[in-house]
Amino acid sequence: MSGSSFGKAFHITTFGESHGEALGVVIQGCPPGLLISEDIIYQALKKRKPGNGPASTSRKEPDKPKILSGTFNGKTTGTPLTIFIENKDANSKAYEKNAAIFRPGHGDITYQAKYGIRDFRGGGRASARETAARVAAGAVAQIILDTYKIRINTFTISLGGIHAERIDPGIGDENILLCPCKDAAQKMLKRIKEVKKKGDSLGGVVQICASNVPAGIGDPVFDKLDADIAKGLMSIGAVKAVEIGAGINASQMTGFENNDQITKKGFKTNNAGGILAGISNGDEIVARVHVKPIPSISIEQDTIDEKGKAQTVSTKGRHDISAIPRINKVCEAMMAIVLADHILRQKTLV
Amino acid sequence: MSGSSFGKAFHITTFGESHGEALGVVIQGCPPGLLISEDIIYQALKKRKPGNGPASTSRKEPDKPKILSGTFNGKTTGTPLTIFIENKDANSKAYEKNAAIFRPGHGDITYQAKYGIRDFRGGGRASARETAARVAAGAVAQIILDTYKIRINTFTISLGGIHAERIDPGIGDENILLCPCKDAAQKMLKRIKEVKKKGDSLGGVVQICASNVPAGIGDPVFDKLDADIAKGLMSIGAVKAVEIGAGINASQMTGFENNDQITKKGFKTNNAGGILAGISNGDEIVARVHVKPIPSISIEQDTIDEKGKAQTVSTKGRHDISAIPRINKVCEAMMAIVLADHILRQKTLV
Amino acid sequence: MSGSSFGKAFHITTFGESHGEALGVVIQGCPPGLLISEDIIYQALKKRKPGNGPASTSRKEPDKPKILSGTFNGKTTGTPLTIFIENKDANSKAYEKNAAIFRPGHGDITYQAKYGIRDFRGGGRASARETAARVAAGAVAQIILDTYKIRINTFTISLGGIHAERIDPGIGDENILLCPCKDAAQKMLKRIKEVKKKGDSLGGVVQICASNVPAGIGDPVFDKLDADIAKGLMSIGAVKAVEIGAGINASQMTGFENNDQITKKGFKTNNAGGILAGISNGDEIVARVHVKPIPSISIEQDTIDEKGKAQTVSTKGRHDISAIPRINKVCEAMMAIVLADHILRQKTLV
Amino acid sequence: MSGSSFGKAFHITTFGESHGEALGVVIQGCPPGLLISEDIIYQALKKRKPGNGPASTSRKEPDKPKILSGTFNGKTTGTPLTIFIENKDANSKAYEKNAAIFRPGHGDITYQAKYGIRDFRGGGRASARETAARVAAGAVAQIILDTYKIRINTFTISLGGIHAERIDPGIGDENILLCPCKDAAQKMLKRIKEVKKKGDSLGGVVQICASNVPAGIGDPVFDKLDADIAKGLMSIGAVKAVEIGAGINASQMTGFENNDQITKKGFKTNNAGGILAGISNGDEIVARVHVKPIPSISIEQDTIDEKGKAQTVSTKGRHDISAIPRINKVCEAMMAIVLADHILRQKTLV
Repeated sequence: MSGSSFGKAFHITTFGESHGEALGVVIQGCPPGLLISEDIIYQALKKRKPGNGPASTSRKEPDKPKILSGTFNGKTTGTPLTIFIENKDANSKAYEKNAAIFRPGHGDITYQAKYGIRDFRGGGRASARETAARVAAGAVAQIILDTYKIRINTFTISLGGIHAERIDPGIGDENILLCPCKDAAQKMLKRIKEVKKKGDSLGGVVQICASNVPAGIGDPVFDKLDADIAKGLMSIGAVKAVEIGAGINASQMTGFENNDQITKKGFKTNNAGGILAGISNGDEIVARVHVKPIPSISIEQDTIDEKGKAQTVSTKGRHDISAIPRINKVCEAMMAIVLADHILRQKTLV
Repeated sequence: MSGSSFGKAFHITTFGESHGEALGVVIQGCPPGLLISEDIIYQALKKRKPGNGPASTSRKEPDKPKILSGTFNGKTTGTPLTIFIENKDANSKAYEKNAAIFRPGHGDITYQAKYGIRDFRGGGRASARETAARVAAGAVAQIILDTYKIRINTFTISLGGIHAERIDPGIGDENILLCPCKDAAQKMLKRIKEVKKKGDSLGGVVQICASNVPAGIGDPVFDKLDADIAKGLMSIGAVKAVEIGAGINASQMTGFENNDQITKKGFKTNNAGGILAGISNGDEIVARVHVKPIPSISIEQDTIDEKGKAQTVSTKGRHDISAIPRINKVCEAMMAIVLADHILRQKTLV
Repeated sequence: MSGSSFGKAFHITTFGESHGEALGVVIQGCPPGLLISEDIIYQALKKRKPGNGPASTSRKEPDKPKILSGTFNGKTTGTPLTIFIENKDANSKAYEKNAAIFRPGHGDITYQAKYGIRDFRGGGRASARETAARVAAGAVAQIILDTYKIRINTFTISLGGIHAERIDPGIGDENILLCPCKDAAQKMLKRIKEVKKKGDSLGGVVQICASNVPAGIGDPVFDKLDADIAKGLMSIGAVKAVEIGAGINASQMTGFENNDQITKKGFKTNNAGGILAGISNGDEIVARVHVKPIPSISIEQDTIDEKGKAQTVSTKGRHDISAIPRINKVCEAMMAIVLADHILRQKTLV
Repeated sequence: MSGSSFGKAFHITTFGESHGEALGVVIQGCPPGLLISEDIIYQALKKRKPGNGPASTSRKEPDKPKILSGTFNGKTTGTPLTIFIENKDANSKAYEKNAAIFRPGHGDITYQAKYGIRDFRGGGRASARETAARVAAGAVAQIILDTYKIRINTFTISLGGIHAERIDPGIGDENILLCPCKDAAQKMLKRIKEVKKKGDSLGGVVQICASNVPAGIGDPVFDKLDADIAKGLMSIGAVKAVEIGAGINASQMTGFENNDQITKKGFKTNNAGGILAGISNGDEIVARVHVKPIPSISIEQDTIDEKGKAQTVSTKGRHDISAIPRINKVCEAMMAIVLADHILRQKTLV
């Protein structure tokens, strides 16, 4: 079935494994006449690229996208837009030794249970490398959002147990961790170094904000805007929790505290995170994801192999220490895809 | 578009407004030959019914379901199974006075923005009453799960800021709040009474656990089992956050702490919440939802009306104080629907 | 899976069996603010109703539709619109005698093979009565088409081997067979009488024409407008062939004969039937369906029963002699549904 | 929206334009563990390849497929299977001269109406070259069908007004036109030569037969097996009519003549074409498509350009004289895709 497809009006289908020939995405429903180039997509991919920064793997992928279909003379044609990203620096050798061993925290054991066969090289389809295709699709979605002046920003608000004390939007892009709080950012970098030495890894929290989303986007009942955002974000490999607006704190408030009262100038507060009853209210859309630490660590762990025999494993391959900040760009892409989808859907009603 | 449909192999479509003629659901993909009766569905609906317990509205709905199609001689036939629930005790008068006023925390303002028209009576399609159709569908899904001995339990682990200190599974069903901790349950009841007096409302946290789910259920990339659970749960009106397994705590651990090491007997821990790379690992599926307080409160709040004029509003209608514990049964239903869907999907691969 | 759903932007889901409680349809994606009433739907259903005319069954169904959801103060709200039609005159007794016998030309044998269980009463879900739900949905689709002044007409151009010699659009509605040729209509009526005496039944050909469809409707590749029309029409029980434009004759022409040359005033001919490369060209959409004779006949036929034992069967129940002209209204409905769907889809691109 | 996707359990998405970088298909839902190779797909593509036979274009495309994802060690993994076919011999120059002119019988005018922009080179997405991706997907579908010993054959039963007088299954593969009647085949070849001289083109009729399809495949109401076959076949560019079983002749028979009576040994006749009430009955599936002549002809025709100005056009490019017999392999592929889809769907019910 269509588990690698997402969206209804802006409909994407991704493909590819970590160490296969290529990754890619087919985008259906992209309106015609939009200016597009491989460079626009490359700029988005560059921010997610492996090989950047202190928490990142040393795998070097150029991630130069190629547009295979759906454009003509630099514009979208309305037909399926296909983006193709070659795998160039895959090192499958590193995986052969432990091919039959289920790495804890990875999908090895579940893929084997599901399919009875699996591409063990670099995690195959379960690899975080899969998200390059999402980022490419997100770059296209953003072109649609640009016509509404919708801006999406992501902030690393927690990493390795260190929390940003404030969100200074200007700071985020300046530092490599996309942390909007200078002091926290420095502590995070220190924490990463310590943990790297131990061969361990770190998780964290990313906040995604979308401004200028018009009111009235989203559908009742199952395809609520927040439900689709939750699915989109939770479908990113390392994400273990998704919050909208006040999120987990909303459960601790009373109705009077949590309700966003309304004045002529707008909402007094934004506990709703810009979404009421599954439909955007014109305020900023706010979501947060809680990201688990990278499961690949060099500390020895107990596990079993395909035959059920006890084994130990420690992963020495090239891996990130934390999915943050590379995952931020994936979250941004998924938010863009959901918003573009619902913006196009809304057009069928008016 | 199909925003009121959910699932691919077990495919449900719900309909109905709070004060309309009826609510209902059409279920496609239900295997033939399953024993079914209106009473099985009624027993599930009774647990979600308004009019039960200290936090509940005084609206009295019999919620007697009628099966309109898809069964023959007490068995499912494989054709669309339609369940119909009449609205009997709707009191639309109470809503007419404030018809043009946007109630804070409700979908009034967003439905108006989206559609330019709305059924203001009891929240229309945005009413929590919509979830009766989900519970009916969940009862059917559970019949499929029964053949795998899959059991779903829900626990109120937080309400009005009071947290269960332990989960004693035996306790949950005994008390009216479905709280698995006796002491906490008593404090919660006290808290409800206090808040009721003030005309305010409460939120809380519900944990949903599914045992005996076979390994190998769920799809890669977008239709990950946890992504579909997140969508299903976040699509329930009052839910503002969804966690899987260790959830928000996973972001604070290191990889070594968070990885569930594997022995011949199974996983040492269950931080994954039974799902790795979007596919069930055979362990207990664990999810938590954070539920905002009911927005309908009798405390006066600032708002505006359809013309943008400043107004104040206080809701005197019949409302729950907390969505808990009625929402627990809705969460249970959504979990059942997602699991049934993915169990049927898996059959296409083997 | 969702085999009883159709359409993407205008998305319908039907349910119900011939002798069950009710038939119905849930329509998603209907734009808000459209004037609607049960009477509009009833007027459409009346034309398809059993009990009319010389070729029709004597089953008398009032077919009074009830709108269960999706409207408010006489207008659509944009939420799922549910229409419900009760079965009142089902006579299941007539079917009990031959419950275990597979009637030739019917779905008895295939439903049994597929599901291992079947509702034998009146054909269950396979009954032509299912099409009442399509006609109800078609009446709603037509409300959308009305805003474009799109008109759909159907003509009986062949019945029982007698062919209309010309299409005089004015004639169609005047005679009970919807035949646009007076002479042919009279011969057809005579033929029906003869065949009725023999206990046999008749097939025929229906032409469906849609005018004022704007150019640019339809999608490339699989969801071509003609492909969706073909699916919609072929999904009507008795239909065995679908033609678009010149249809079967197109295969006998040369390119020069078949190509519709273009002038400033439009196309010189309409062999394309208003569709080029799956997209409407602004000319009249023309389709034809070839309808098999009603399989229920009172002539004795060889068959087998559920145990594979040889049997003979002759159907004495209340049945039409020909699906025509009642099927005309079903074809009209399906055309309306496909056009409404693609018109709404097109809005996502502009 | 997803107009380039087809199927629910076996779900394909195609992309690519005639003169773009490449064509391709992403296949979701393919069961894991199937033996597959680029050569299997190449063998299927070779039969559809341009450059073969008297009716074919002189464009020479190697059509060497590359598998980009979804396999491991020569077996399918269950994840999206992507097949990629490069365009090597596109000659866009030939199209530049008439870029602004709408060729009669082509989608130029409708693509322009729909999108306001179009890739005029070789028809862009509307080119028959798009069907290479279908044939690749069909080759994968056939691997699934092989496990059921399902065989699909296609026969050219009419071409340029010459009809096969009998179907001798052994003959079809022997002659280049796939015509199962030796005498007719020779006349067809002669007819092609005559018409080629005149710069005109020809249509014809193809019959597609599938044997060994198990009973019970197909869904009630909209996703009937014949409805999905009709959609699949009608979505092939040049097809203007689809028949199932007795097809257009069924409309001229009486019920007694058309009903396939049943004996212990099976059906006495196969007017149903192997499908009753949308579900396979175990007999041979029989469909026929009526193919219009290739619209590209060198005879001068009247038309208009993008500005609405009168023009004449005659196409001198490299084109087939008839879509037959290359289209036969596309029909075969679509039949395979529909059958594979419904076979996998059926597994969810048992």
